Amino acid sequence: MKNKTAEYGLFIMGGGPGDPELITLKGYRTLQRADVILYDNLINNELLEMAPEHCKLVYVGKQPYGNYTPQDTIHELIRQYAAPDKVVVRLKGGDPYIFGRGYEELCYAEEQGIQTHYIPGISSMQSAGLNGIPLTHRGVSESLWVITGTKKDGSLSRDLRCAINSSATVVIYMGMKKLAEIADIYCSAGLGHIPAAIIQHATLPHQKKVICAAKDLEQAAKDGELSYPAIIIIGEVVSLQESLLCQAS
Amino acid sequence: MKNKTAEYGLFIMGGGPGDPELITLKGYRTLQRADVILYDNLINNELLEMAPEHCKLVYVGKQPYGNYTPQDTIHELIRQYAAPDKVVVRLKGGDPYIFGRGYEELCYAEEQGIQTHYIPGISSMQSAGLNGIPLTHRGVSESLWVITGTKKDGSLSRDLRCAINSSATVVIYMGMKKLAEIADIYCSAGLGHIPAAIIQHATLPHQKKVICAAKDLEQAAKDGELSYPAIIIIGEVVSLQESLLCQAS
Repeated sequence: MKNKTAEYGLFIMGGGPGDPELITLKGYRTLQRADVILYDNLINNELLEMAPEHCKLVYVGKQPYGNYTPQDTIHELIRQYAAPDKVVVRLKGGDPYIFGRGYEELCYAEEQGIQTHYIPGISSMQSAGLNGIPLTHRGVSESLWVITGTKKDGSLSRDLRCAINSSATVVIYMGMKKLAEIADIYCSAGLGHIPAAIIQHATLPHQKKVICAAKDLEQAAKDGELSYPAIIIIGEVVSLQESLLCQAS
Repeated sequence: MKNKTAEYGLFIMGGGPGDPELITLKGYRTLQRADVILYDNLINNELLEMAPEHCKLVYVGKQPYGNYTPQDTIHELIRQYAAPDKVVVRLKGGDPYIFGRGYEELCYAEEQGIQTHYIPGISSMQSAGLNGIPLTHRGVSESLWVITGTKKDGSLSRDLRCAINSSATVVIYMGMKKLAEIADIYCSAGLGHIPAAIIQHATLPHQKKVICAAKDLEQAAKDGELSYPAIIIIGEVVSLQESLLCQAS
C-alpha cells in the first residue's frame, strides 16, 4: 500500500468475472475518474459506462484463439496515453495477476518511468460459488489448484498431472481446446468419474453451464454448446451443489 | 445468477483482504441496506461503518488458535436473525469459499429454508500483487496452488508434497504455526532456496512483510515479528518484485 496518495498513472485493474457489480469499490471509483480506459474483450460494457464523458475508450482485445491486439501495440498505447496528470486504466477481465498477464504490462510501464497501481479483481473461478460450487470445503478439498490450459508454447501444463494426485479442486483457465486431453489425463489415472463443471459467461444473464464427469468433458461442452472463454472446475466440490435444497444466487 | 431480484435473506459475503475499498460494489451496496451484520475478527471496522444506523452489528469472531464463537452459535444467530424481509449479512475476511467455511453456513441456512446469496470477495492471496508479487507470470509459474496449513484435524495438508513437484506458485493460508514443517518439506526436496514471502495484515497501513528463502521461513517470521493471520507465498514469482524499478501501489 505504498503510494496510497498517488492518484494518477497507470492502473492495472481487474474487472471481475462479468457482473459489473463484482468490480471492487476501488476499481469503480477509479473508473469514475478515468481519462483513458484500455479494455480487453472479456470486459462487460457496463463497466465502461461508469467512466466520465470525456474518457477515451480504447479496445485492445484479444479474441481467444483469434484476432488480437499485439502486446507491443498495447505497450505502445500505454506509453502514449500515460501522463503524470492522467488516470489511465488497463481494464482486464477477472484478476490481472491470475493468468491475466497484467504484470507484463506493469513491468513495461515501470521501465518507462510511469507511476503504476494494481487493483485486484474477483477472479473468474470465484463465479463457481455463484453456481453453488465452493472452491474449497472442509473435509472435501484441502487445496485449490489453478492451472492454465494453454502455456506460452500452446501446450497443456504438466502441472495437471501433479494436481490429480492431490485432494485439490482443480480449476483450468483457457482449457476449452484441451478438453479431450484433460479428460484423458483423468481417465489414465482412473479418475474419469470425478465430477466436473464448465461455466461460460459466468455471472452474466447469458451464462451457460454443464455438470458432467471428467471423462465426458468434451461431449458435455458440445451438448451444452459451450465455447471459450470458459472455466473448468474438476473435483468433489462440484457435486456439493446437487445437495443444496435450492441454488444460491 | 438465479434469484437476482431476491433482495432479502442471508448474504454470505467476502469482505476482501483488509482495505475496505477492496470490497465489491455489490458487497458495498448490500452493506448499505443491511439490517444485521454477523462479522468475524478479520473484518476491517470501516466496512461496518458502511451499514445504516439501524443495522445491528454482531461479532462472531474466531481468533486464530484462540477464543472463538462456536459454529453452532453462528448457525443459531443466522436462524434467529434471518427473516423474509431482512438483509442479514455474514461478513467474512477474504472470500467465503476460499478456506472461509462460508459454504457450511450457506448449507445450514438453506436447510432452514432461508433465502441465501453469495457475494465473492478479493481473496487474501491477491494482496500479493499489491506487494509487487504476481500470483502467476508467463514463463515463471504455470499454476497457482492454494493450500490450507491447518486441516480439520490440525495437520498440514499432504497436498504440499505434491505441490512442490510442480511449477506452481504455492500459497498457504493458516500456516503460521507450521513454518518449520513447511520449510522442512522444501529442504527435503532440495528446494530450500526457493523465494518466499509472508504478509500479515495485507493491504492495511500496518501491514508487515518479509521476503526470504523457503528454508528460512520460521526465522524470518521471528525477525520480522510477524504473527497470524498471515499468508505465505512460495515460488519464483516472489523474486520478480525485486526487479521492479519501484513498487506498485
